[in-house]
Amino acid sequence: MNKGLGSMKADSSAEEVVRLGWNLLREDLSLPSVVLYRDRLEHNLAWMQRFMDAYKVRLAPHGKTTMAPRLFQMQLDGGAWGITLASAHQTMVAHAHGVHRVLMANELVGRQNMQMIANLLGDAEFEFYCLVDSAAGVEMLGKFFSALGLRLNVLLELGVIGGRCGVRDDAQIEQVLGALAQWNNTIQLCGVELYEGVLKEEKDIRAFMQRACDVTRSLLERKAFARGPALLSGAGSAWYDVVAEEFAAAGFGDAVEIVLRPGCYLTHDVGNYETQQKRILASNSIAREMRSGLVPALHIWAYVQSTPEDELAVVTMGRRDAAFDSGLPTPALHFRPGRDEPIATPTHWETTKMMDQHSYLKIAAGDDVRVGDMVGFNISHPCLTFDKWRILPILDEAYNVVDVVQTYF
Amino acid sequence: MNKGLGSMKADSSAEEVVRLGWNLLREDLSLPSVVLYRDRLEHNLAWMQRFMDAYKVRLAPHGKTTMAPRLFQMQLDGGAWGITLASAHQTMVAHAHGVHRVLMANELVGRQNMQMIANLLGDAEFEFYCLVDSAAGVEMLGKFFSALGLRLNVLLELGVIGGRCGVRDDAQIEQVLGALAQWNNTIQLCGVELYEGVLKEEKDIRAFMQRACDVTRSLLERKAFARGPALLSGAGSAWYDVVAEEFAAAGFGDAVEIVLRPGCYLTHDVGNYETQQKRILASNSIAREMRSGLVPALHIWAYVQSTPEDELAVVTMGRRDAAFDSGLPTPALHFRPGRDEPIATPTHWETTKMMDQHSYLKIAAGDDVRVGDMVGFNISHPCLTFDKWRILPILDEAYNVVDVVQTYF
Repeated sequence: MNKGLGSMKADSSAEEVVRLGWNLLREDLSLPSVVLYRDRLEHNLAWMQRFMDAYKVRLAPHGKTTMAPRLFQMQLDGGAWGITLASAHQTMVAHAHGVHRVLMANELVGRQNMQMIANLLGDAEFEFYCLVDSAAGVEMLGKFFSALGLRLNVLLELGVIGGRCGVRDDAQIEQVLGALAQWNNTIQLCGVELYEGVLKEEKDIRAFMQRACDVTRSLLERKAFARGPALLSGAGSAWYDVVAEEFAAAGFGDAVEIVLRPGCYLTHDVGNYETQQKRILASNSIAREMRSGLVPALHIWAYVQSTPEDELAVVTMGRRDAAFDSGLPTPALHFRPGRDEPIATPTHWETTKMMDQHSYLKIAAGDDVRVGDMVGFNISHPCLTFDKWRILPILDEAYNVVDVVQTYF
Repeated sequence: MNKGLGSMKADSSAEEVVRLGWNLLREDLSLPSVVLYRDRLEHNLAWMQRFMDAYKVRLAPHGKTTMAPRLFQMQLDGGAWGITLASAHQTMVAHAHGVHRVLMANELVGRQNMQMIANLLGDAEFEFYCLVDSAAGVEMLGKFFSALGLRLNVLLELGVIGGRCGVRDDAQIEQVLGALAQWNNTIQLCGVELYEGVLKEEKDIRAFMQRACDVTRSLLERKAFARGPALLSGAGSAWYDVVAEEFAAAGFGDAVEIVLRPGCYLTHDVGNYETQQKRILASNSIAREMRSGLVPALHIWAYVQSTPEDELAVVTMGRRDAAFDSGLPTPALHFRPGRDEPIATPTHWETTKMMDQHSYLKIAAGDDVRVGDMVGFNISHPCLTFDKWRILPILDEAYNVVDVVQTYF
């Protein structure tokens, strides 16, 4: 009983789904429905892995975007080193679905959250890293995990003034190192991490990367890492190209394993990430050589439910169906049931407002739009679209439903 | 494996939950977690029912807010006439959980959506209404349901220029009535509906209500309704008091059953609805007589995970945990594990930014805030908070978990 899929069961196998013979254009889905396009997903998956391989860096896709274990598996099968996640709950979900290596790019705080991770550490096959940025945080982890006789791998999180988490300066680094020394049988420093997405200017991002390389080099010299190679991780944003360039240029060789964490590339978008992709294709030589870039692989389809004014069509898609924090969804395809295939929407169509369950589509007087027509929308910011759906159908080029993925938010 | 509840099962009974003996302050929940406060929910539930009873109007709470059948049942047990919903999917969920009367305050569009409702109409105990606002819409419903030999109850939706759905003028009304006449064995007009939330000014809302009363009166005279009494429904917004006043003042007596549809009163908020509630308590004589108004019954609890700058605490709550479309969550309670109970947060604490999984809490230098502290936040706009959670614990006054509710978005 899942939104968008009528009575299809969430745990249907790909075989069961195909056997239903459902097709978007035959109105088998109970719109509004999000859909993923298989060929485009596969294109993006391969594109990002090749990009990372070209820089000889590891890919740990940020799984918080989709929280869809079936997509995690596609990413791992495609060559990913592990999955990045943001919380103990997300880590528990990934582990339960067979993910063996998780970089939790966040601090681990709270008794129940620590207990959830402790439970997973009982699995000897499971490799886990989380972040620390304060002596107080190290102290809490140390007390908790030492009492259980467990060891926990951590990365030192670097931050910038005005940013989010992460040590701001050398004095804060020394405080964390001091606390780690107190708990050195329990909390093992394995590397350095940062999130560059809090910065907006390329030059600031490059400077932050260089600071991370300096800190890493200094900690290598001090033999502060319990792991060889040490980990150095960044790129949880659309700046993965700049991070790859700077980290690769540092020339650490075998002493450091570089792990990048883009999350939104799998579905891409038509908004923030699209803009960044244009910058990357224009400036990055490896991306240029690969020619085609990432392509949007997700649509929200909805019905026209009312055309009460000459320039207004109301559609059955709202803020509970699509992200609206980085720009409203933009109309892309128009389909009238009974016709052969969707056509591109006129460029003057525009989403002007979203309410909880409705959107306003501005059209022109005389446009051929009817109640019952279907409209496919591009979205900006995949993260906040995925978490509105518990099950997403995957379509082939002919709009047949060929698989479903379940989310675990 | 649900966010906020560690390994608690989603379908736990209240008895099983109580047996776990979980308590928020003992860190049994894996924050971030949304929580509902039982006593406050019950207060709000009774308050709204008494308010409606005082006006002799029916309450059909908008269930899209919570999509939690356990809360629907509380509302029905408390005297609600039925549940309002916004889509075929939501209606299917409610029916599957024992709701026998649904006002779908939306147009029903699309083959699969119509099929889902058709399947429910096979249950003779199930009473269902949806909206129509165009001849084209009536035509599609007529063709579909007549082919199945089923009858469908509809309300005529009224709208305003610049608004959402709904007929704008008498000419559009006549077009819809014409189409209904063509399908009069299949599509039965049972009343009139509007959504006043698209208007901002009280005088415009009162004028809209008066138009609705005029249309209803005229259709009664024309014997256009297949139902006696006819239904007249509004108040899917925080203006339920004005709608109740105007509809009650129309003096329809037994000829019309008035159904109001507030949705957010159960949890209330500290934001939009709080502001409206102050207006209602100041201007509405019945609300004044009832003395206490609605109270906020929902918090998001999160941990302080980093205090990297003197005036910044980063907390583990993001845009995937709480609504941010009508103002950011505001800090309310501060608790340090090991202490007796939470204290009110200083008035100068403020949420200044939310990212997907983090929020920035502005504090003052020297404030006693530590990594591992818990902060409880009020939210504005319950709808877009509920849909970020699949299971919500209900707490008693001592912060013990005494029940859980599951959501079905």
